[in-house]
Amino acid sequence: MSITANDPSKKSWIKVPENSDFPIQNIPFGVFLTRDDIITIGTRIGDYAIDLGALHQLGYFEGIPLTDDIFLQNSLNDFISDGKKTWRLVRNRISEIFEVDNPKLRDNEEHRSIVLFTLDEIEMQLPVQIGDYTDFYSSKEHATNIGSMFRDPDNALLPNWLHIPVGYHGRSSTIVPSGTRIRRPKGQTLPKGADKPEFGPSKMVDFELEMAFITTDANKMGESISVAEAEEYIFGLVLFNDWSARDIQKWEYVPLGPFLAKNFASSISPWIVTLDALEPFRTESPKQEPAPLPYLKQEGKRSFDIHLEAAIAPKDGTLTTVARSNFKYMYWTMAQQLAHHTINGCQVNSGDMMGSGTISGPTPDSYGSMLELAWQGTKPIALSNGETRTSIQDFDTVIMRGYCEKAGLRIGFGEVSTQLLPALP
Amino acid sequence: MSITANDPSKKSWIKVPENSDFPIQNIPFGVFLTRDDIITIGTRIGDYAIDLGALHQLGYFEGIPLTDDIFLQNSLNDFISDGKKTWRLVRNRISEIFEVDNPKLRDNEEHRSIVLFTLDEIEMQLPVQIGDYTDFYSSKEHATNIGSMFRDPDNALLPNWLHIPVGYHGRSSTIVPSGTRIRRPKGQTLPKGADKPEFGPSKMVDFELEMAFITTDANKMGESISVAEAEEYIFGLVLFNDWSARDIQKWEYVPLGPFLAKNFASSISPWIVTLDALEPFRTESPKQEPAPLPYLKQEGKRSFDIHLEAAIAPKDGTLTTVARSNFKYMYWTMAQQLAHHTINGCQVNSGDMMGSGTISGPTPDSYGSMLELAWQGTKPIALSNGETRTSIQDFDTVIMRGYCEKAGLRIGFGEVSTQLLPALP
Repeated sequence: MSITANDPSKKSWIKVPENSDFPIQNIPFGVFLTRDDIITIGTRIGDYAIDLGALHQLGYFEGIPLTDDIFLQNSLNDFISDGKKTWRLVRNRISEIFEVDNPKLRDNEEHRSIVLFTLDEIEMQLPVQIGDYTDFYSSKEHATNIGSMFRDPDNALLPNWLHIPVGYHGRSSTIVPSGTRIRRPKGQTLPKGADKPEFGPSKMVDFELEMAFITTDANKMGESISVAEAEEYIFGLVLFNDWSARDIQKWEYVPLGPFLAKNFASSISPWIVTLDALEPFRTESPKQEPAPLPYLKQEGKRSFDIHLEAAIAPKDGTLTTVARSNFKYMYWTMAQQLAHHTINGCQVNSGDMMGSGTISGPTPDSYGSMLELAWQGTKPIALSNGETRTSIQDFDTVIMRGYCEKAGLRIGFGEVSTQLLPALP
Repeated sequence: MSITANDPSKKSWIKVPENSDFPIQNIPFGVFLTRDDIITIGTRIGDYAIDLGALHQLGYFEGIPLTDDIFLQNSLNDFISDGKKTWRLVRNRISEIFEVDNPKLRDNEEHRSIVLFTLDEIEMQLPVQIGDYTDFYSSKEHATNIGSMFRDPDNALLPNWLHIPVGYHGRSSTIVPSGTRIRRPKGQTLPKGADKPEFGPSKMVDFELEMAFITTDANKMGESISVAEAEEYIFGLVLFNDWSARDIQKWEYVPLGPFLAKNFASSISPWIVTLDALEPFRTESPKQEPAPLPYLKQEGKRSFDIHLEAAIAPKDGTLTTVARSNFKYMYWTMAQQLAHHTINGCQVNSGDMMGSGTISGPTPDSYGSMLELAWQGTKPIALSNGETRTSIQDFDTVIMRGYCEKAGLRIGFGEVSTQLLPALP
């Protein structure tokens, strides 16, 4: 089935501002609270949110096999369970409905007043109920930076890194959407030179610039998914800030990995951009040497050219972009990650989320965390208001953005913006 | 409110076999499929399962604030959300209903025929929908054994171990109830002396003898739970077999912890025994030296005297008990684990599960895994049929049991029994 929604020549009767992340070719999916306090599933074109629950009730999805309440839910899990064919039918239909020459909704003022919301009328929610959340560690530059700092610059990558898309399980209960303010975590740390840990608020709160993909039901327990078929089970992507407390992490993480250093909060952008919408931006992933084991071998373009930025806004609101990276730097692709995750028979469900790991690029201004940008505190980052940062301070807001751009077409993710509040007393 | 259900002198009009894990003083909670293919929440006395959904519809819980459908659900999550006061009221009421001298249900044949099931008429399900699952590493003997094998016998514990209840996140999607057969996982391993990994079915599948507790909604994100109040948020305990593939684990676990080596399957016993039912078996936990930081300090008896056993039954069905341990050996208590887990503001929800980590005792026959029992394969374990084991073989069934016993009162967990099938081709 062709993805007619991706036709770059299409225009919408909804005015789309220049440089918008949400032209009619995007059609992401999210969940929002309407002005009437109703939760619904929706999409976005330009600066309008569109209530898909209402559109469905008004009959605009006639002919597509959907249950009556598929969009009248507080998560996308059931819709995602319907599978790629359905996602495509729905995206194509939405594209038709909002195409500039289609009068059906355009000229029906009553329907428009039911279906369309300005952004200030809605409140974005978490788009999925995340059953399990896994975070990978798939940027070679990031793993090399961390290895250089904490182990040995000449031997920065651990022996398994080039063979395995290394990953670990994170906590679902503290994944929050953009706009949810979070608290500085308290915990144990071992001060330099001390032989006993101390307790208090973390002194080194950091962001990690990541993306995450959302899966559909992919397999039964005991079964695996091949690299070749993996993308069939990926619904779409969000921006992901994997908040980290470096001082807590350093003390706790041996031998079982990060725990309280990460699970106090993780923030995602609220609109899931489908893999279909990203299709025009496919690109090669970095050459893998040594060649991975056969179950991880891939062919063709399996990455996406997505520009990523992280910015810090202190209390005064001035904004400084501190990192510019790209999703395509990831050494291990999403298809390899999902194939690896299931090679042991691990079951993947609708609404599961898998993070990329911090995406650092080759240059110091493309590193995806303050730990790397300020190189363990040795190179403070200058903000535009004259302050400097080696980590995130109370009341700072961290804003991440991401977008693809090519031949006049821009498909973006909006932002994930999160303010850090002081620890509770 | 007193726990009248715990009165040791009580007897039930349901015949309870000698040495049953389920006298009228237990009253655990579980979820089962009835002979009519209906999912319901139930309890167990002797060898009878009791349909609490039906009991409630028949009015037996009158006066207790419960929603009409609280027991007609496929998980205990909502009931657990109701909180400890409600759990206690319901357990006390069940105890009353089944007390030998109470004729109300005893003499109502029609009601009895609706409410009571023999065990062969039902199929036990997963008792909770597990949102997040955490596994701790809280047995000092186990951590010491692992450290001795893989690092340095004179320096077996890592520096953080005596200060932190070390834990990590596991995967919820592959937690299955007793009776669900599992597959040997495939994955990458690094053969001894090799410089490149190879791929295939794990050659070292192991069990881990653990228990796990189930929580209720404990806190909001950003807030913490103190050690003193932690037990208020623990609903009860199950037996837990944390299946592990040692060869996969060894290659993958640095630096982010176990992943595919664990997430192929984890098995639990289906009846949650409440903390209330375990009250008579409270005992001291091991003395903690050095004293933990103030937020982890505890007073009183915070552990429970629970005998634990692991047995192996090969294809021929002969059973050999290979390990005898006890929950009370755990260095860090559940209260400390939960307080630590939330000290950074991590939110804990109803139905979350937290594993103890392998519970090894002080003697070689009390070790909780084949890795320790057979000491890395150097001391094969003899089975009663003449075979030996250093790890679990295809078609072996691993059975774990647990019970408390004191002054003629026995409160048990039943079993978690899991057969290992060969890897899929």
